[in-house]
Amino acid sequence: MEAKSARNARARGREGEELLLMAPGPVKVLPRILDAMSKPVIYHRGSEFAELYEEIVNALKEIFQTENDIFVLSGSGTCAMEAAIGNLVQESEKVLCISNGKFGERFFEIASRYGEAVALRFEWGRPVDVSAVRAAVEEHEPAVVTMVHNETSTGVLNPAAEVGRIVKANDAIFVLDCITSIGGDDVPVDKIHADIAIVGSQKCLGAPPGLSALSVSEEAWEKIAANKRRKPYYMDLLAFRKSFEKRQTPYTPAIPLFAALHEALRIIQEEGLRNRIRRHRTLAKAVREAVKSIGLSLFPKVESESAYSNTVTAINLPEGMTDAEMKAEMRKRGIIIVGGQDKVKGKIFRIATMGNVTAEDVFRTIEALEDVLFERGILRSKERGAGIDAAERIISAL
Amino acid sequence: MEAKSARNARARGREGEELLLMAPGPVKVLPRILDAMSKPVIYHRGSEFAELYEEIVNALKEIFQTENDIFVLSGSGTCAMEAAIGNLVQESEKVLCISNGKFGERFFEIASRYGEAVALRFEWGRPVDVSAVRAAVEEHEPAVVTMVHNETSTGVLNPAAEVGRIVKANDAIFVLDCITSIGGDDVPVDKIHADIAIVGSQKCLGAPPGLSALSVSEEAWEKIAANKRRKPYYMDLLAFRKSFEKRQTPYTPAIPLFAALHEALRIIQEEGLRNRIRRHRTLAKAVREAVKSIGLSLFPKVESESAYSNTVTAINLPEGMTDAEMKAEMRKRGIIIVGGQDKVKGKIFRIATMGNVTAEDVFRTIEALEDVLFERGILRSKERGAGIDAAERIISAL
Repeated sequence: MEAKSARNARARGREGEELLLMAPGPVKVLPRILDAMSKPVIYHRGSEFAELYEEIVNALKEIFQTENDIFVLSGSGTCAMEAAIGNLVQESEKVLCISNGKFGERFFEIASRYGEAVALRFEWGRPVDVSAVRAAVEEHEPAVVTMVHNETSTGVLNPAAEVGRIVKANDAIFVLDCITSIGGDDVPVDKIHADIAIVGSQKCLGAPPGLSALSVSEEAWEKIAANKRRKPYYMDLLAFRKSFEKRQTPYTPAIPLFAALHEALRIIQEEGLRNRIRRHRTLAKAVREAVKSIGLSLFPKVESESAYSNTVTAINLPEGMTDAEMKAEMRKRGIIIVGGQDKVKGKIFRIATMGNVTAEDVFRTIEALEDVLFERGILRSKERGAGIDAAERIISAL
Repeated sequence: MEAKSARNARARGREGEELLLMAPGPVKVLPRILDAMSKPVIYHRGSEFAELYEEIVNALKEIFQTENDIFVLSGSGTCAMEAAIGNLVQESEKVLCISNGKFGERFFEIASRYGEAVALRFEWGRPVDVSAVRAAVEEHEPAVVTMVHNETSTGVLNPAAEVGRIVKANDAIFVLDCITSIGGDDVPVDKIHADIAIVGSQKCLGAPPGLSALSVSEEAWEKIAANKRRKPYYMDLLAFRKSFEKRQTPYTPAIPLFAALHEALRIIQEEGLRNRIRRHRTLAKAVREAVKSIGLSLFPKVESESAYSNTVTAINLPEGMTDAEMKAEMRKRGIIIVGGQDKVKGKIFRIATMGNVTAEDVFRTIEALEDVLFERGILRSKERGAGIDAAERIISAL
């Protein structure tokens, strides 16, 4: 009964509301973050900005669980991925790009522009196989190994700690795309030996899009300093390090987005990182259990629960519905979700649970999904509510 | 008398106000632009963003006075400068970098990372000498020529049309940094043969920092397509062109800044480009006449009035004052101005009149400057007000 009245309240609450972003970035941005962003622009060579930047970096160090240097780039996660590769890699050097999804492929594309990129590919939806990684690292002896921690395109979480150990045992530099994991999942950057770890502002941190941040280890700095190639200018990490002495950026930063990120990080501190990670894990599990309980199947083919992403759920499209239809039907109900990309386009749809997403947001999404499936004749009348009930079982244990 | 009562009103109005940004970017951002920026974040693969982006590009085409393609990058003006060079230049190719200030040097630094950069340097504060440009272009036969239109570091406006003619007569590609001129001064991109022209969001367009835009001519596209080098990824212009078919960007854009830029461009349309240019010219002239009338001298050594920047005024520091003192004293009075950079650090200070700056802002700034100089014993009691009077003479003719 409680569940039912909660549903009614949600149904009432929904009318006239803003579109709810359940996409894997950009995510819903809380009003207090929007307010912080819309304060008058401050000057980026003054003390206010220096304080803001320093506080951002200190907060990020806690979330990255690192003692490494951290910088914020005025560019998306892709900008930070290129910053890592462009600063580290010489033209003759091998970069082993572990790939089991679109963003793994992106690293390969970027590395192909800077060094000799070697792709180690796994089936999309399967987690990275650690023993194959070991074999490839030993065979190719790459200078740099790249991996995507949380593969947003397939909803798979890759084994960062195991891969980090292999990379370090082979004296390579480990670049880890944590764009959609840091701030929502446990990413102890130092412990897992990520020499460069990358996060995006518009994912689990809950800030608007436009910024990325990356951490740089001592070993990465040594490699960057020894790299004689002509490096990209806008993302020259040595310039970022030099400017950081004055708590500045080398070029004009996207100041309002820094103010927004600052507020988003304050929210994370208030919630507490552990609580935040638990919330992400719970809400992702709630989505998984909900969709399974209404007859849908998850896209990832994994042996262990821990290989599921805790921030985005990839679901096989039910027979008879295209992803365009699914997105349009959900949108009519006030929810933005996304389809599949590249190889899995037309096969899956995805629901993200990133950032300041709430149980309420998940209920709204599942309810809308049930409604769509019912209207399409995919879900029978007596099956309705099973998704919400499953989600509530998981969430009530939060 | 009217001037005096206006001054009193201004003095009263000043108390408790926000700091007024009279820096050459970021500039003061109007509340309606801040409001537009702080709307809930929209999804960047949906129709709302597509419409927003298309309207932005169409508005920019009018302001650039061009039929060329235009793209918006989620990165500062430096990002767009690198996009131009990184897409155009092969490693063996010569880039002639015309330089008479810090930003001319920046082009040289960027070009040095991509091709064979040749600097053609002029004294800081002097405009570019057209006959020397002709001689250098004929001597070096560069593939690409770069110039800064409005050299923010020195307050000099360079002869873009003349240089453009020389570059085109020699079959080279002309890359023009209009970061601090477009939107404030007359920059007919097609007429002056700028193959790539660049603007920053946080200058004369009056938007917050974080975005830049650039136009690409047919000739530039041909050169980019023929360029076999491995291009930068984040700023790959061919990817931008492809994504623009769907009115999207290749990677997640800084969405709130797009919303802000959209509103800033609407303000430009409401004002009218001609009026806006006239306002910029008048306010810069008002600053020049004001500072001269209170015994200060302008930094640029130019023969013609038209070689002064219409968006930023560089002024020699009066004897006995450091630039740190000048900035601090102005700041105490609520105004952010800037000092000199690099070669002219400690020699000059600069007052910008960019974006949605008003006559009132100029009066406040000049009044504060008079106050500083009076307190320092540089301006005598009976000389006070001369700056305001001079500014008012210019502005009243607006």
